[in-house]
Amino acid sequence: MHELLIRNFNRHVSLSDAEAARIPDYFQHKKIRKKQLLLEEGDICKADYFVLDGCLRQYETDKAGKEHVVQFALAGWWISDLYSMLTKTPAVYSIDALEDSNVLLLDLQHREKLFQEIPALNIYWRVIMENAFIALQRRIILLQKPVELRYQEFLQRYAYFEQHIPQHQIASYLGITRESLSRVRNAALKSKEGNDDTVK
Amino acid sequence: MHELLIRNFNRHVSLSDAEAARIPDYFQHKKIRKKQLLLEEGDICKADYFVLDGCLRQYETDKAGKEHVVQFALAGWWISDLYSMLTKTPAVYSIDALEDSNVLLLDLQHREKLFQEIPALNIYWRVIMENAFIALQRRIILLQKPVELRYQEFLQRYAYFEQHIPQHQIASYLGITRESLSRVRNAALKSKEGNDDTVK
Repeated sequence: MHELLIRNFNRHVSLSDAEAARIPDYFQHKKIRKKQLLLEEGDICKADYFVLDGCLRQYETDKAGKEHVVQFALAGWWISDLYSMLTKTPAVYSIDALEDSNVLLLDLQHREKLFQEIPALNIYWRVIMENAFIALQRRIILLQKPVELRYQEFLQRYAYFEQHIPQHQIASYLGITRESLSRVRNAALKSKEGNDDTVK
Repeated sequence: MHELLIRNFNRHVSLSDAEAARIPDYFQHKKIRKKQLLLEEGDICKADYFVLDGCLRQYETDKAGKEHVVQFALAGWWISDLYSMLTKTPAVYSIDALEDSNVLLLDLQHREKLFQEIPALNIYWRVIMENAFIALQRRIILLQKPVELRYQEFLQRYAYFEQHIPQHQIASYLGITRESLSRVRNAALKSKEGNDDTVK
């Protein structure tokens, strides 16, 4: 159950066997069915979630009821409303499952204990937060670009999302309408076919 | 010279006097004149910069030559092209000074040494990266909102930016034209005057 998580920790720090053996004590397993909410806007986010399999989505709902995707999370990723969890204030985001998923849940109390008992994990979390920060800065630049470029860059970076995530969710993530995404996808496919013909 | 930095560290961790006394060994001081580049896109970012005073700006220039502001940094903030620094690859962002500024420079080698010698700073960096991540997620939501709302929320969160940063830079940060910013600012001022009249 915890191998993916421990492998993930060991990408950035070296846990001893004794430390690795203690990891399961800090986490709870949770199944989430497709469309089930893991966190609802307005509730206090109680935990950080590590995805074992499936796919989760974090989003904000605006006053007109439109959903804006902030983040997806596939196997090996973390997801939460970090601000809500750290400050114990109502969440501004909701989190739900786009398909049946399994997560490991780390609540705030266990998270703090974990940092105290295995200080190396501060390094792990520093590094994954650095990486997440870098990815978000790029996304901000992406959201300021023309629709065609947003889609091209998205494909370059996150080609595997295309297989896992419904098109209308990708459109929301890119801040464009479903129709715009459909148009740029078709144009990209046509241009690819044209290139393939040339090669023949 | 280093008091602001050490105070900043001590907001999240407790450095001993001996540790605090060693901090200056890791940092170099650098003055940057208004409009001077601290980092140019295409160069490798060599360091992380802690702002002592003044104001810096991190931006990307698109193919049409248009600049998109990713981040500002005032006294007490960090700024760098983190990806470029950590991977030693060419920077995608430039950093320049919007006014005469002083920074403390922490290059990659000293940064790694600092983490080894004062492990508590991993906690500090984890926490500031968590905060930066939270702020960026909010900014992504902001960039998907109507122009009026972007300006209102910006004012609520970063009122002090208004005093420090030229309007056309704020427009770029909000992903809107200078004309749009001017329009929503005037509308906000008029609405405020209207409210003040009512109060009288």
